[in-house]
Amino acid sequence: MKLCRYGAVGAEKPGLIDATGAIRDLSGAIGDLTADSLSPDGLKKLAAIDPATLPLVEGDPRYGVPFTGTRQFIAIGLNYADHAAESNLPIPEEPVMFTKAVSCLTGPNDPVTIPRGSVKTDWEVELGVVIGSRASYVEEADALSHVAGYCVINDVSERDYQLSRGGTWDKGKGCPTFGPVGPWLVTADEVGDPQNLGMWLEVNGERVQDGNTRTMIFSVAKIVSYLSEFMVLEPGDIITTGTPPGVGMGQKPEPRYLKAGDKVRLGIEKLGEQGQSFVGWSR
Amino acid sequence: MKLCRYGAVGAEKPGLIDATGAIRDLSGAIGDLTADSLSPDGLKKLAAIDPATLPLVEGDPRYGVPFTGTRQFIAIGLNYADHAAESNLPIPEEPVMFTKAVSCLTGPNDPVTIPRGSVKTDWEVELGVVIGSRASYVEEADALSHVAGYCVINDVSERDYQLSRGGTWDKGKGCPTFGPVGPWLVTADEVGDPQNLGMWLEVNGERVQDGNTRTMIFSVAKIVSYLSEFMVLEPGDIITTGTPPGVGMGQKPEPRYLKAGDKVRLGIEKLGEQGQSFVGWSR
Repeated sequence: MKLCRYGAVGAEKPGLIDATGAIRDLSGAIGDLTADSLSPDGLKKLAAIDPATLPLVEGDPRYGVPFTGTRQFIAIGLNYADHAAESNLPIPEEPVMFTKAVSCLTGPNDPVTIPRGSVKTDWEVELGVVIGSRASYVEEADALSHVAGYCVINDVSERDYQLSRGGTWDKGKGCPTFGPVGPWLVTADEVGDPQNLGMWLEVNGERVQDGNTRTMIFSVAKIVSYLSEFMVLEPGDIITTGTPPGVGMGQKPEPRYLKAGDKVRLGIEKLGEQGQSFVGWSR
Repeated sequence: MKLCRYGAVGAEKPGLIDATGAIRDLSGAIGDLTADSLSPDGLKKLAAIDPATLPLVEGDPRYGVPFTGTRQFIAIGLNYADHAAESNLPIPEEPVMFTKAVSCLTGPNDPVTIPRGSVKTDWEVELGVVIGSRASYVEEADALSHVAGYCVINDVSERDYQLSRGGTWDKGKGCPTFGPVGPWLVTADEVGDPQNLGMWLEVNGERVQDGNTRTMIFSVAKIVSYLSEFMVLEPGDIITTGTPPGVGMGQKPEPRYLKAGDKVRLGIEKLGEQGQSFVGWSR
């Protein structure tokens, strides 16, 4: 099942993608796609709906973040061995965890603002994992049962804020609009094995990242289990699981960063595509 | 104005502390104390209510977190020069930022669970700053106008998770129940200058921390302004602003950590007191 929210910012309606790829309006069936909708029970109710009975959405509406209610937006760093190498950082022995501010969440195709004064804004295609049921001290073998589904995320990053401003990486990860999510939440049953998904990212049409989730150092199951040792994961929480090689910071012979006017497009197998125009900061 | 939420976990009602220190029931006036209640307009409406017209709450109910709707729980590290010294870390040139998982928020007097296998659970009395209106790129001179009020926070920390498990400090800061907040949200007008508040913490009756917010390296105004450069701060967000010397990790001749059965009590001038019994982990 592919779930989405569509419409103007702040006025999104819940939707479901039918077999032809069209959006069907779910708003007659549920008020919105909330953290509750992502529970096993919530998803079961949605799966029982015949898409053909839902109104077809005309035109080409904007996509919003595919669900509401996210309280924690957690990120895993250096989770692809080749990306650790291009970052000149050692392969981690345990998952590297940091956070993105939930206030940076934005629709998958909304413009992304380069922060005021930033000269090192960078891209990262990542597999997003969405929690469907509370997880605390869960074993790796049970971990995937807490996952509602998956989505495409661009873990937009400001490298100078992340690495040169003292303290944790968090400073460079949560700037306004740095968290495009979507277009869809694709439920776990439809995705199957999360460790075999091709992923790519293009800047102005040039392919710069080309990877596969099979080369993750720590699997989705391992990450969910591991994080649940340090915090309670709740329905609606998003974990973005690291990026394969090819970020701007790792380009040769020189790093390459995003500037106003650049267009980024990215996608993950089975999860759809998203794209952002990067714009300069203005009040 | 002192605002609170009282009652059993998950069934808290909004309340207001009257001039005698008693709780008055606000639930006839508002459904709950939400992020909206913390806006300048929301607080103005509450301030217009005569506490004497509200029902007196009998007995000695449990306090919950004094408001709901927190989406971001941000922390500042090493913000007192003497604490940086006891941690054997340099005085930061810019505020050190990390995050606590919002799922760790808990009532001020609720028991705190020592995580499974933990041997380095530690205490930190901190001034909590609660955001009342959206803040993005705000100047230091305007920053305090975005603050709804203040509260006592115990920034409970697991030092091994924080410092020895790779990645950021976030791992040791957001374990379940690691975020006691309250008893009250005291509005900014009642607190006045946030940089002149005595603060203390006792373990089993022994005074271990004794400080004052006047020795902060970065003031509340500076912190709010600084953070707003890296993320959008939203109503209901909590910033915990660092701890004065005297944490367990800094005790001489040996560090001292909390074990099951220990009782911690802490308070800040004008903001009230809180206390926790520490308990061992069990499923």
